[in-house]
Amino acid sequence: MTEIQYILNTFLLLYAGAMVFFMAAGFAMLESGLVRTKNTTAILTKNICLYSLACLAFFAVGYGLMYGDITDGDHAGAADFFFQVVFVATAASIISGTIAERMKFWPFMAFVGVLSAIIYPLQGNWTWGGGFLSELGFYDFAGSTIVHSVGGWAALAGVLLLGARHGKYGKNGKSNFIPPSNLPLATLGTFVLWLGWFGFNGGSQLAMATKSDVNAISTVFLNTNMAAAAGVVTAAIITQVLYKKVDLTMVLNGALAGLVSITAGPDYPTVWLAIVIGIVGSGLTMLAIPMFDKIKVDDPVGALSVHLVAGIWGTLAVGIFNPDVSFFIQLWGVGIIGAFVFVTSFVTWYIIKLAVGLRVSLEDETQGIDIAEFGQAAYTFDDYKQINSEGVR
Amino acid sequence: MTEIQYILNTFLLLYAGAMVFFMAAGFAMLESGLVRTKNTTAILTKNICLYSLACLAFFAVGYGLMYGDITDGDHAGAADFFFQVVFVATAASIISGTIAERMKFWPFMAFVGVLSAIIYPLQGNWTWGGGFLSELGFYDFAGSTIVHSVGGWAALAGVLLLGARHGKYGKNGKSNFIPPSNLPLATLGTFVLWLGWFGFNGGSQLAMATKSDVNAISTVFLNTNMAAAAGVVTAAIITQVLYKKVDLTMVLNGALAGLVSITAGPDYPTVWLAIVIGIVGSGLTMLAIPMFDKIKVDDPVGALSVHLVAGIWGTLAVGIFNPDVSFFIQLWGVGIIGAFVFVTSFVTWYIIKLAVGLRVSLEDETQGIDIAEFGQAAYTFDDYKQINSEGVR
Amino acid sequence: MTEIQYILNTFLLLYAGAMVFFMAAGFAMLESGLVRTKNTTAILTKNICLYSLACLAFFAVGYGLMYGDITDGDHAGAADFFFQVVFVATAASIISGTIAERMKFWPFMAFVGVLSAIIYPLQGNWTWGGGFLSELGFYDFAGSTIVHSVGGWAALAGVLLLGARHGKYGKNGKSNFIPPSNLPLATLGTFVLWLGWFGFNGGSQLAMATKSDVNAISTVFLNTNMAAAAGVVTAAIITQVLYKKVDLTMVLNGALAGLVSITAGPDYPTVWLAIVIGIVGSGLTMLAIPMFDKIKVDDPVGALSVHLVAGIWGTLAVGIFNPDVSFFIQLWGVGIIGAFVFVTSFVTWYIIKLAVGLRVSLEDETQGIDIAEFGQAAYTFDDYKQINSEGVR
Repeated sequence: MTEIQYILNTFLLLYAGAMVFFMAAGFAMLESGLVRTKNTTAILTKNICLYSLACLAFFAVGYGLMYGDITDGDHAGAADFFFQVVFVATAASIISGTIAERMKFWPFMAFVGVLSAIIYPLQGNWTWGGGFLSELGFYDFAGSTIVHSVGGWAALAGVLLLGARHGKYGKNGKSNFIPPSNLPLATLGTFVLWLGWFGFNGGSQLAMATKSDVNAISTVFLNTNMAAAAGVVTAAIITQVLYKKVDLTMVLNGALAGLVSITAGPDYPTVWLAIVIGIVGSGLTMLAIPMFDKIKVDDPVGALSVHLVAGIWGTLAVGIFNPDVSFFIQLWGVGIIGAFVFVTSFVTWYIIKLAVGLRVSLEDETQGIDIAEFGQAAYTFDDYKQINSEGVR
Repeated sequence: MTEIQYILNTFLLLYAGAMVFFMAAGFAMLESGLVRTKNTTAILTKNICLYSLACLAFFAVGYGLMYGDITDGDHAGAADFFFQVVFVATAASIISGTIAERMKFWPFMAFVGVLSAIIYPLQGNWTWGGGFLSELGFYDFAGSTIVHSVGGWAALAGVLLLGARHGKYGKNGKSNFIPPSNLPLATLGTFVLWLGWFGFNGGSQLAMATKSDVNAISTVFLNTNMAAAAGVVTAAIITQVLYKKVDLTMVLNGALAGLVSITAGPDYPTVWLAIVIGIVGSGLTMLAIPMFDKIKVDDPVGALSVHLVAGIWGTLAVGIFNPDVSFFIQLWGVGIIGAFVFVTSFVTWYIIKLAVGLRVSLEDETQGIDIAEFGQAAYTFDDYKQINSEGVR
Repeated sequence: MTEIQYILNTFLLLYAGAMVFFMAAGFAMLESGLVRTKNTTAILTKNICLYSLACLAFFAVGYGLMYGDITDGDHAGAADFFFQVVFVATAASIISGTIAERMKFWPFMAFVGVLSAIIYPLQGNWTWGGGFLSELGFYDFAGSTIVHSVGGWAALAGVLLLGARHGKYGKNGKSNFIPPSNLPLATLGTFVLWLGWFGFNGGSQLAMATKSDVNAISTVFLNTNMAAAAGVVTAAIITQVLYKKVDLTMVLNGALAGLVSITAGPDYPTVWLAIVIGIVGSGLTMLAIPMFDKIKVDDPVGALSVHLVAGIWGTLAVGIFNPDVSFFIQLWGVGIIGAFVFVTSFVTWYIIKLAVGLRVSLEDETQGIDIAEFGQAAYTFDDYKQINSEGVR
């Protein structure tokens, strides 16, 4: 490899890593837009803290478990670590949405620490660290399974132990609609995630110093964009048909479902196939959201439907459409990673629950955890009328 | 061309394309900040859906019309398509602001489909596809005319058939001020657009693999920034002088007017000339906004003044200041593109109006189209006091 | 230098410069989220206008003072100017937060003009322009002192002449808590700044065309990220211990403190040392915020604690931990730059105060400067109930 090639490959990781970092902002905006006003400070605090803790925990422990000794030549580059660490944080970000509006802060952070230091890197090693799934030929280009469904399984384990938000499901079993508080924020978050995904998927080529590498990255950018666009239009049409109204939160989740779906293999399909993969991913997510609600798995932002369901679909789609990849190996990879992450996460959540509890008190939940746990309302728009303790407006 | 040069040129398109993609978020934030609260979900939904549909329609039909067969060697690169497609979406984004607060969703989407598949690519072919305007020497580096004024003409045709918002113009002919709902969002949108414009203009060099290319890109970045900065300061001074108060929405439009103005030729001027072009563009926009209001063309976000007026100015400015470019050819290009886009857009809007109507009912408009057409309020900040159907807060 | 190396170096400045530009959006969002609703339009207007004026003033006067004649070969590249000019704007952005909620617009702009044209470039010349501090071996990689503490000293001089917000300090000397109005915006601003900092610090390597350059940039990206992450977790722990609640605004300032701290030397430390530097910077900021409040220096956004205190710490830390750099030279650089900027800023503010006054009237301050000085409320969320002058909702 020439010096220029080394420079180009390194710069790709830095460029893409910075974009993936920005996905942390996207998750924070998306989730804070979808929860209620009274729980907004909480979700913002969780998002910036989980990103930070994930970085520290993956640096201190996780990277070594996933790729071997950090001083080792091949993987030791700071640029590579920077790119990898922002992926871990993405997996952790998925969880914060699902457990929103009722989980205590520090127990959540404890789980993020365990996920980033141990659970994520152990399963990541099986494929990206050169482990047994890699040897079997399991194909997950940028992490439909390794990042997105992993976050989904960990979130599912948590929410089963945590339970639904108070008042979400009535005594008659009816699901009460809890409206999102700030749709411009949620939309911004979706656009930021979409932007970051170019780095997430494009950077996963890991090199751009040959013509074939940079051509692959071009294909990845284009397919990523088109799968997302297809997910959006699909969601608009489905919600129009089913509910007689285009539903913006569903449309946002359609975009994300398209993105998650294409993530396992954005490099091989034609554009038309990428569009089909996005359409199916979005459609499955549109079905999964009411389905999870029906079985009373209360997921305030739809993260399970987007990251777990579309993540599985995207991984299997590689097995269906890419002739070089075995469908059964894909299924096996999805299953073994899912089983491992679900079980280890469940045990981790369970231990935390026994030790300190996961859930805020009913009183705090009713009041909103912003005031109860964080002491600050997210919005104080009535300050035109506020009088401070000195009697001064 | 060496392999490294190929890589650098391709990467430029991907880098710049991702930035231009992000302009979709900028338009969504700008427009949702400038409309009323009750029409915010609508404008957000339109923005994410128009971007997505524009991508699909331009891929399926438009690119072939503009640049010839997509499998053809020179233009077939995925990277090139990715960069081009985000431009189409920009043209479509301009329209959503002008028709905000009273147009139905699906008729708007139908127009976006026609614009992206047919109208935009046909006129784009005349210059960027090597057609007759290109042969005449018409110069539009990054699209003051081909993107921005095209969006403006299409919006103007639509708004003439659509009419003003109910209550905007009183029986005595007086224009009622309708305040924007969220200025932080509008400001954020402007900054995001400004950022994206570095990709929009910088990427339009289309290559960076020679010293002269990368020097040109540097000039483009700097001139783009300085024209915008000049537009801001101009708007601040003009509104201070005219209205005795610096008007933030005018300042934001001043930034955008500076950006649109420099877009036709950011590569040739000295920095001082770029500043002058930005000043004049901002000044014309400051005049055009009240002028459109006076003739009762109701443009809630000022998009016609920014994209159409400053777009024309910027294109003509190349003819004035660049000795290699004929003013009359510039004028001819502006005129022929304007006439073509206005007429075809008018016919398209008219057919849609006859077929399904363009406008929501007066009742829906009064209530706000968020609830009426999309079933969701954009903000639910009163949830501290909300009681759900179970009697639970 | 080969042509490819020239291209890579130039592109680095453009890439990083665009990211640093986006920090202007970050400051605007951070500050508008932390002030009261009634002063939000004002802070937004100040932020976009200060960026623009700083660009114009630095172009017209400042760059020449800092680096010599702008037509001079070595520094004349447009790409270099673009990267440098966004730094000036950062220094100016720091000030707008500290003087928020009570300073008049045009006097503020006058100061920004003087800072950008004269004060910033004169001291910048001492180190980055090859002046006497550079010759002494003063080390400030990306500007903990030259940008951040400079902004801090200028802000401190201003706030001493401006005084505290009305009602902030009671007659009994008690400090009244004034809650931030929009924490999602403030969080978004912090994430945007964090993103921009990769450009701010990474681009300060100024070259990436050798293996050692790009390796240095990788180290810079990683250390920048880890110092910020450490700052976040430190702030979460400290506020939990001190106040029994994790305080989001403190956490955001912890992130920024980590970023400011590492800025003087992100290129030399190990990751663990970068983490330590971030921890100490965040800890000092957590102490400084209540300390400034105690001595009645009213800084609505905590900018002095973040940019001045952590900026000094970061610069001294290079002297402590980098064996090639003298602690005393670092101390001397901090002191001489601080003395120069504080004195010249104080004189400038004082002249402006004498000439036209700095402060809005008590009546305007009480009403909120959005309506009084800018004529527009930042948010009009009650428009569901609005009736315009025609009696139409």
